[in-house]
Amino acid sequence: MTEDLVAANRILVNEGVLDAYGHVSLRHPANPGRYLLGRNLAPALVTTADIVEYDLDSEPIGAPASVAHFFERFIHGEIYRARPDVNAVVHSHSPAVIPFSVTERPLRPLYHMSSFLYPGVPVFEIREAGGMTDMLIGNRELGAALAKVLGDKNVALMRGHGNVVVAGTLPMAVFRAVYTEINARLQAQTIALGGPINFLAPEEGEKAMRVLEKIHLRAWDIWKRTALKDIAR
Amino acid sequence: MTEDLVAANRILVNEGVLDAYGHVSLRHPANPGRYLLGRNLAPALVTTADIVEYDLDSEPIGAPASVAHFFERFIHGEIYRARPDVNAVVHSHSPAVIPFSVTERPLRPLYHMSSFLYPGVPVFEIREAGGMTDMLIGNRELGAALAKVLGDKNVALMRGHGNVVVAGTLPMAVFRAVYTEINARLQAQTIALGGPINFLAPEEGEKAMRVLEKIHLRAWDIWKRTALKDIAR
Amino acid sequence: MTEDLVAANRILVNEGVLDAYGHVSLRHPANPGRYLLGRNLAPALVTTADIVEYDLDSEPIGAPASVAHFFERFIHGEIYRARPDVNAVVHSHSPAVIPFSVTERPLRPLYHMSSFLYPGVPVFEIREAGGMTDMLIGNRELGAALAKVLGDKNVALMRGHGNVVVAGTLPMAVFRAVYTEINARLQAQTIALGGPINFLAPEEGEKAMRVLEKIHLRAWDIWKRTALKDIAR
Amino acid sequence: MTEDLVAANRILVNEGVLDAYGHVSLRHPANPGRYLLGRNLAPALVTTADIVEYDLDSEPIGAPASVAHFFERFIHGEIYRARPDVNAVVHSHSPAVIPFSVTERPLRPLYHMSSFLYPGVPVFEIREAGGMTDMLIGNRELGAALAKVLGDKNVALMRGHGNVVVAGTLPMAVFRAVYTEINARLQAQTIALGGPINFLAPEEGEKAMRVLEKIHLRAWDIWKRTALKDIAR
Repeated sequence: MTEDLVAANRILVNEGVLDAYGHVSLRHPANPGRYLLGRNLAPALVTTADIVEYDLDSEPIGAPASVAHFFERFIHGEIYRARPDVNAVVHSHSPAVIPFSVTERPLRPLYHMSSFLYPGVPVFEIREAGGMTDMLIGNRELGAALAKVLGDKNVALMRGHGNVVVAGTLPMAVFRAVYTEINARLQAQTIALGGPINFLAPEEGEKAMRVLEKIHLRAWDIWKRTALKDIAR
Repeated sequence: MTEDLVAANRILVNEGVLDAYGHVSLRHPANPGRYLLGRNLAPALVTTADIVEYDLDSEPIGAPASVAHFFERFIHGEIYRARPDVNAVVHSHSPAVIPFSVTERPLRPLYHMSSFLYPGVPVFEIREAGGMTDMLIGNRELGAALAKVLGDKNVALMRGHGNVVVAGTLPMAVFRAVYTEINARLQAQTIALGGPINFLAPEEGEKAMRVLEKIHLRAWDIWKRTALKDIAR
Repeated sequence: MTEDLVAANRILVNEGVLDAYGHVSLRHPANPGRYLLGRNLAPALVTTADIVEYDLDSEPIGAPASVAHFFERFIHGEIYRARPDVNAVVHSHSPAVIPFSVTERPLRPLYHMSSFLYPGVPVFEIREAGGMTDMLIGNRELGAALAKVLGDKNVALMRGHGNVVVAGTLPMAVFRAVYTEINARLQAQTIALGGPINFLAPEEGEKAMRVLEKIHLRAWDIWKRTALKDIAR
Repeated sequence: MTEDLVAANRILVNEGVLDAYGHVSLRHPANPGRYLLGRNLAPALVTTADIVEYDLDSEPIGAPASVAHFFERFIHGEIYRARPDVNAVVHSHSPAVIPFSVTERPLRPLYHMSSFLYPGVPVFEIREAGGMTDMLIGNRELGAALAKVLGDKNVALMRGHGNVVVAGTLPMAVFRAVYTEINARLQAQTIALGGPINFLAPEEGEKAMRVLEKIHLRAWDIWKRTALKDIAR
């Protein structure tokens, strides 16, 4: 399980979603009141030894005092608290997505691979929750405000910062994070072509989303294979 | 022959046409009522052992029951049925092409390397054939509807999904798939420059297409060489 | 000398100017009535054994009958004939440059690294020279027409096809081909920002061009080092 | 210390800020009236043996006469003279930044990672300081004029040329140079989406900048690790 979490970190770097920043977590498989997240470290460097266990208040459980924790781990704790259906969370500065966080254009699904965006992609404006901040989700209150804006959706943008992507499983969260980035890139290109855009209809989105349940592991498998090769090197 | 089909899979990944999804097939060289296609697997992982034979109804011939098949293999079967001149088919989510599938801008040839687009690039709207679907070509009827929209052209876009590219030979189908992606990228850049665009005239397109018959193997040879190096590694 | 020509081929592939197509030539160092060019082969595969000598009519000198020649070698022969100051010619489908060949936006120097564009970048319209063609410079007449449009400039675009870049030395021709591509990319990005563009003034262009004489070998040296490493591998 | 300067050169190449041109310097740790800069060499080739010491007039100290110096080292000397708080300077042709140097669009921080842009990004117009030049900062006067335009800011653009980025430490200067490039890329994409842009408010910028003090070494550490691996290879 922690091996998959390590792989998820590398995959998200390989696919351009994470750089030296951002993080991916997994709800503890045996204890839904806990989650697993790397210590404060660049994602490409995370190994199984770097995985820390947290409770839903985002307090570390049993980690040595010397371990540094992500300042923004509250993103994970508060989403797990608010969303019992969610078992994996990605927070990133996914580059193509950033522009959609600071303009009025909603991110919408262009094709079946990003159909999980069809329920809508809310934008979290931290000024509404915390006024003029350092832009970080550095406490439980801000984490809870973000979780509230996310609601029952799969992706939420964070204005001037990045996004969160959630799913019922780790491979699906990784899949969604990658195709959120790709959809943002393609939607920007489409807007530049000019004229009306024929997005997925809600009914198409809903049906295509069910297809992704069946096919997302094909991507996960090859991404993980590449990630493990990188680790072995 | 299956070695070429394996190479085609790798080439299309290397050139950014395929990712973990999409597929390329070859009409059976000895039996025009059959075609060869990898089993349900990421293209970068396909080996000769993964190639399956199908009839034109897209039923597998002699494959063990344990083998999983591409849900969308009907794309291939129905195009081979409708187009006796076609011996290779690529279906992809070629990224730069997607925007042209959801806007009103037709994909048109900017230069001689994509002259095979000159007869026109129709867009398949699955809503017309199947109403509100999961966007996939999951049966013979949808495959036949796509083949009908393709008509006698070399490329057809699939709205909110991807495209199909066909040719008389496997190297030419791969060549066209790569340069369809490149042309889409260049056409988007050209549109962003503003003003009228001087596309290839039909007569230029037709003459340049004949040139591609003579020169496309130069690309295939070096692409295949790189692909085989990757496999050997 | 032929080693440098081999390196030039690899460099132009590494820097994204050439793909499986395009070619670079060198006027014969000992005989200005001759030039050296690879045989009909993808640039990344060219070795010293593949270099062929041509006269200015683009007839091969002493090559075995089995050797295939570039159909468009007349580009080189006719430019060498018309331009005694030119000792190296690059013909490419340099991707970012293509859009400028089919729109009304002239390619102009954004910064000192592309100051060699300041005298202007003419566009060769093959329809004026040859009517409806296959777009290729397949004979001396079309080569001469292209050379005429190039005039005394450093770069000319070929509508719906690519460009030619010339210089007094091979390293400078390679340098200019690379920075023509980069300038095209940057100019497209600049146009997308909107508003007037502050291009180099002609006097700045002329002065900066003299600087490039002094500094272009810094790029050539490191590019060649990388290219030779690739060959050794 | 010089090892870090060597790493900084490689990092800036790896991250796409430098190509064969541009340079990064460090104020001498023991003597604030001196600075360290590679000799005239492509950044990717710099080793500890290539580091030269200069005084603030940009005269080399104790370098053999055979050593060639960067023509534009005055950028560094004059900024160190004008800015006692600055201990590291990057000068680059950072590609995505160039368009902002020749249009009227100011570069502004889209997100917390580039919050160091919030005090404003002035554009140095060399015509105002030197009339029609070769665009280079080739003497102390032009260096001083650039330093004056930079003022107390972290980044200044140089019209038709590139930019300078400064910081109190070498890792922070590298961090800022990388995220200046990324912000430029993202801002261009955002402009293309159309409509008003919600940039960081000054108060957010100021607070987020303090966060970067705490987290920028996470990027430096992994970048340096990769750079040293490249050197060892």
